[in-house]
Amino acid sequence: MSSKFTFAAYQMDKVNDKEGNLKKAVNAIETAAGNGADIVSLPEMFICPYNSSLFPEYVEEAENSRTLNVISDAASRFGVYVIAGSIPEKSSGKIYNTCFVFDKNGSIIGRHRKLHLFDIDIPGKIVFKESETLTAGDQITVIDTEFCRIGIAICYDIRFPELSRLMALEGAKFIVVPGAFNMTTGPAHWEILGRTRALDNQVYVALISPARNEKASYVAYGNSMVCDPWGSIIAKAGIHEEIIYAQIDLDTVERIRTELPLLKHRREDIYKISKASAE
Amino acid sequence: MSSKFTFAAYQMDKVNDKEGNLKKAVNAIETAAGNGADIVSLPEMFICPYNSSLFPEYVEEAENSRTLNVISDAASRFGVYVIAGSIPEKSSGKIYNTCFVFDKNGSIIGRHRKLHLFDIDIPGKIVFKESETLTAGDQITVIDTEFCRIGIAICYDIRFPELSRLMALEGAKFIVVPGAFNMTTGPAHWEILGRTRALDNQVYVALISPARNEKASYVAYGNSMVCDPWGSIIAKAGIHEEIIYAQIDLDTVERIRTELPLLKHRREDIYKISKASAE
Repeated sequence: MSSKFTFAAYQMDKVNDKEGNLKKAVNAIETAAGNGADIVSLPEMFICPYNSSLFPEYVEEAENSRTLNVISDAASRFGVYVIAGSIPEKSSGKIYNTCFVFDKNGSIIGRHRKLHLFDIDIPGKIVFKESETLTAGDQITVIDTEFCRIGIAICYDIRFPELSRLMALEGAKFIVVPGAFNMTTGPAHWEILGRTRALDNQVYVALISPARNEKASYVAYGNSMVCDPWGSIIAKAGIHEEIIYAQIDLDTVERIRTELPLLKHRREDIYKISKASAE
Repeated sequence: MSSKFTFAAYQMDKVNDKEGNLKKAVNAIETAAGNGADIVSLPEMFICPYNSSLFPEYVEEAENSRTLNVISDAASRFGVYVIAGSIPEKSSGKIYNTCFVFDKNGSIIGRHRKLHLFDIDIPGKIVFKESETLTAGDQITVIDTEFCRIGIAICYDIRFPELSRLMALEGAKFIVVPGAFNMTTGPAHWEILGRTRALDNQVYVALISPARNEKASYVAYGNSMVCDPWGSIIAKAGIHEEIIYAQIDLDTVERIRTELPLLKHRREDIYKISKASAE
């Protein structure tokens, strides 16, 4: 296994039709691969507006999905892993906010259904209720790649420290989080959440947002970023469309875990964290 | 119970003798009480240099402690709760890094022995081994006051998200952390750790450092601060000696927990966190 690889995050300025978004995603995958990326991530709900009431219009079933076919084809054609942000996925009559992960051959190697639905009500600022149309997943997702084990979370999932901790304890060295914070929660929380999850768990963390579009019903914060295991930001986008690149160095993970052995210093005789199903 | 109270953090410029430090602490308690503080906190190891090899020289046993007598007297005389930073406490031949908490009558209502010993080795920057002389505690500490339940952690303890989470789940609305980060870890981590623990757990968090003394063998970062449950800093010291004050508003805790119900949205069917002894 190589100890270094290049990660690319596509801070996509979404358009309002699915085919247009797919075309943009494929172009970005091609560009990133051409620039040496080994893994490319797209943002949350990259094929559609982030709008609870519109998710049902854009839903796809995994078995016969235009989006998954297009992304699979791009992954294999350009020879990169693709963490395909998320799409509204229909399964057994339910809709999930789901991230599919593709290897370099275009095969699906992982699927994360958002575990924590975003239901927020801050008077005069932001009201959003994913639970009106979506169903939450029921699995923690870590995926093996040729580089390292990668944990996947979607947006609001990053707010729950238990999830990142369990992914790290299961061996993830990199946590990838397609997300779309807004103009209330973004400035307040985006950066400290990404940095602290990385720092606490001594992993790399990437947060991938859509570009900011002031005309959208839901205005995404932008500021996609990658944090290293020391909690430092090593790549950061502005608010507009761009692809950012970060070198992920697994030797850095090991060095920091040796110098400041947080994971080793956990007091497992005092507190215990586990998957509920593992009990 | 009053829903509001005033917290004071004494960012103390320590001197090198215990009696001098005790005098300064008492003066600060008097000043803070005079300015309306309901609870005053002192920093970690406020009676002595933060130096592993010197802790044995300064140790005190709780039963016959000059320091605890002096602080108890100050708490009752000035009618304030005192979270007495920490001292090297000797008990059954072992030395702990211990925080004693006093009520307004000067009675000890809580004792936290640092759970996570600070052993770090970053070549060329900082090497420190608390475990050379100290023993770690074995209890999570939450204390009931007339205002709210308060969780106590000491310095390195704040790096472990399990601890803050469990204190919040046990009902703490305020987590108080006497600590002494250094000039490597302070600029990198102090602020995001305080802010993120507050944000994740929807509690107030206070970090209380000694003032920065460039001549000390261990140079503390300073920057004592109080964060609200939204993760915002509501009071912050510079690097020199000062007392900072923050209004802790328990209605704010409830409002934020209603608007952004993170604690309610935890997926207890997916992950489980508990005291190990409770299993």
